[in-house]
Amino acid sequence: MQDLANALTLPDPLPLDSGAQLSPVTMAYQQYGALAEDRSNAIVIFHALTGDQYVASEHPVTGKPGWWDRMVGAGKPVDTDRFCVICANVIGGCMGSTGPASDGPGGKPYGTSFPVVTVHDMARGIARLLDALGIAKVHAAIGGSMGGMQALAFASDFPGRAERVLVLASAARQSAQNIAFHEVGRQSIMADANWNGGDYYDGAHPDAGLAVARMAAHITYLSEAGLTEKFGRRLHERDTKSFGFEADFQVESYLRYQGSGFTQRFDANSYLYITRAIDYFDLAEEHGGRLADAFAGTGARFCVVSFDTDWLYTTAESQHLVRALNAAGAPVSFVELSSPYGHDGFLLDTPGLDEVVRGFVG
Amino acid sequence: MQDLANALTLPDPLPLDSGAQLSPVTMAYQQYGALAEDRSNAIVIFHALTGDQYVASEHPVTGKPGWWDRMVGAGKPVDTDRFCVICANVIGGCMGSTGPASDGPGGKPYGTSFPVVTVHDMARGIARLLDALGIAKVHAAIGGSMGGMQALAFASDFPGRAERVLVLASAARQSAQNIAFHEVGRQSIMADANWNGGDYYDGAHPDAGLAVARMAAHITYLSEAGLTEKFGRRLHERDTKSFGFEADFQVESYLRYQGSGFTQRFDANSYLYITRAIDYFDLAEEHGGRLADAFAGTGARFCVVSFDTDWLYTTAESQHLVRALNAAGAPVSFVELSSPYGHDGFLLDTPGLDEVVRGFVG
Repeated sequence: MQDLANALTLPDPLPLDSGAQLSPVTMAYQQYGALAEDRSNAIVIFHALTGDQYVASEHPVTGKPGWWDRMVGAGKPVDTDRFCVICANVIGGCMGSTGPASDGPGGKPYGTSFPVVTVHDMARGIARLLDALGIAKVHAAIGGSMGGMQALAFASDFPGRAERVLVLASAARQSAQNIAFHEVGRQSIMADANWNGGDYYDGAHPDAGLAVARMAAHITYLSEAGLTEKFGRRLHERDTKSFGFEADFQVESYLRYQGSGFTQRFDANSYLYITRAIDYFDLAEEHGGRLADAFAGTGARFCVVSFDTDWLYTTAESQHLVRALNAAGAPVSFVELSSPYGHDGFLLDTPGLDEVVRGFVG
Repeated sequence: MQDLANALTLPDPLPLDSGAQLSPVTMAYQQYGALAEDRSNAIVIFHALTGDQYVASEHPVTGKPGWWDRMVGAGKPVDTDRFCVICANVIGGCMGSTGPASDGPGGKPYGTSFPVVTVHDMARGIARLLDALGIAKVHAAIGGSMGGMQALAFASDFPGRAERVLVLASAARQSAQNIAFHEVGRQSIMADANWNGGDYYDGAHPDAGLAVARMAAHITYLSEAGLTEKFGRRLHERDTKSFGFEADFQVESYLRYQGSGFTQRFDANSYLYITRAIDYFDLAEEHGGRLADAFAGTGARFCVVSFDTDWLYTTAESQHLVRALNAAGAPVSFVELSSPYGHDGFLLDTPGLDEVVRGFVG
């Protein structure tokens, strides 16, 4: 969707879990802080479903601050005065890394001829990027939500490459309910006449379908109590109900704004591919049903953080992961933080979060 | 949408909360059991958002048994050997009562020129139906979900007309989160190019948008644990993932089936109007912010039932209602039942439910 200064083409085709290969592969990334001469101070951050590489710098499309600006920077819990932070757009994404909007073999955008990728494929792409940057081992691998899944895949698939793994608001598998919500989003996109089987880059984009997908997902990122506190049943810019279908309630207006704003920075096909990757993720399944086996010989220390009002990736899912890490003999610490923000707790000013991250990153 | 044998045209226009009047008003209803000569044995059942009057008889479109067949019938907890059960399609609905698909003043379907109705308007329509049937007072008013809201509105707006009020899986107000989910459904319908501003009865209907709306809503009717137990991450009619966008998982296939099946029996505009009515419902707001005042002089006994895995209308919302009934001095019993079915618990074989209903109805 745009040319980015920090992008690198991988020297080799990227093998995918489906059996296909992706080539060429561009990895768009951002770097914050200087890499030490011995290359020992790299931290890799994996982004979530609708995130991107702009962790701590202005987003080129929205002009907003980076999505983890409050956590990453000089003197911040992930201190860029000490560490070199790398964050890359995932393959399948739409912020410069190779995805369905990229030109395929015929010189036209891939659309749905782009291969279905997995969370492991995403992690592999980023491992290859680290190879290309000469970073054999990272001081820490960090991610929230889908980023946490990538961090787990990175630790599992590349033993010894991460000294520390920090997983926030995530899980070792996607639940049935979460698959269901994703499927609603996909069906909404595919129901939009403009989607056109994924071949829409020359014309109108399926913005209406993508906006509805985002609206449905957005509800799952918040908590019921948070929504009640933030909006309750308050009316939007009116004193009485309209007895019509305008956005009478603030929560309606807010959701519509979230939906329409999202379409300006995200590609509908990427939304299909990335939700699919998350839904396919089940680290135990990929190890004969025993999650602990995914972490045999990982060599990393783990920290798992859940948020009490997160009903998308619950504390129970984090505890399930922690038990498996214990069974694998991996050093692991676990904390459930209390926050009103639901799943978004890992992105926001949740009490205690900064201290946990600072303490674990060291 | 169809002619029904049991339908009655109200003798007078129906005044609406918006200030508009609806005329003529057809009320389509079903009756189960004989009305006693003294007309003292009537029970009115109010249906939920996507329900209808076919409580205990075959649905004319789907051919399926009535939606509460297990609860209503000869010898069943609501015993039609003793009681005369009346259930009417709500105004705004699409099973025979006047709604957006009905012909408006110009002889064409109303579409979005149909007036926005409220839960109180629905209850008022049914009260007028009872008037027309010569039923001054009912032995019991019963409803689950939106049906419970109507039962509360009936008790509040027509003091003395109900001896007993049974409210299941419901609330005295619609929460911000529930408004948000409804708004996703409405936006999905309105995003469908076939919706055409509500004017689609001559052509293709907005089935794709309505199906997505139903899929999103359906998730909220179930519990996370129930979805995991029923589907988990099991694949649908395949041994391995397709690495495509087919319904790989059973839960996806199930949701798609729910979505497409729904479009065969429900009108998209009715979905807009009925969700709007629910979102507008806040019984306290309509009584100066004090819920107890809604029940001053009601004269009825109440029974409130919640379901522990229902996250759409939670036990906390039921308790909020019960406290208000206590404050109003109304006799009220409350029970939280344990069920794996989430919000759908009131429709399904929840342990203890039959006994509670039978005991309260008497």
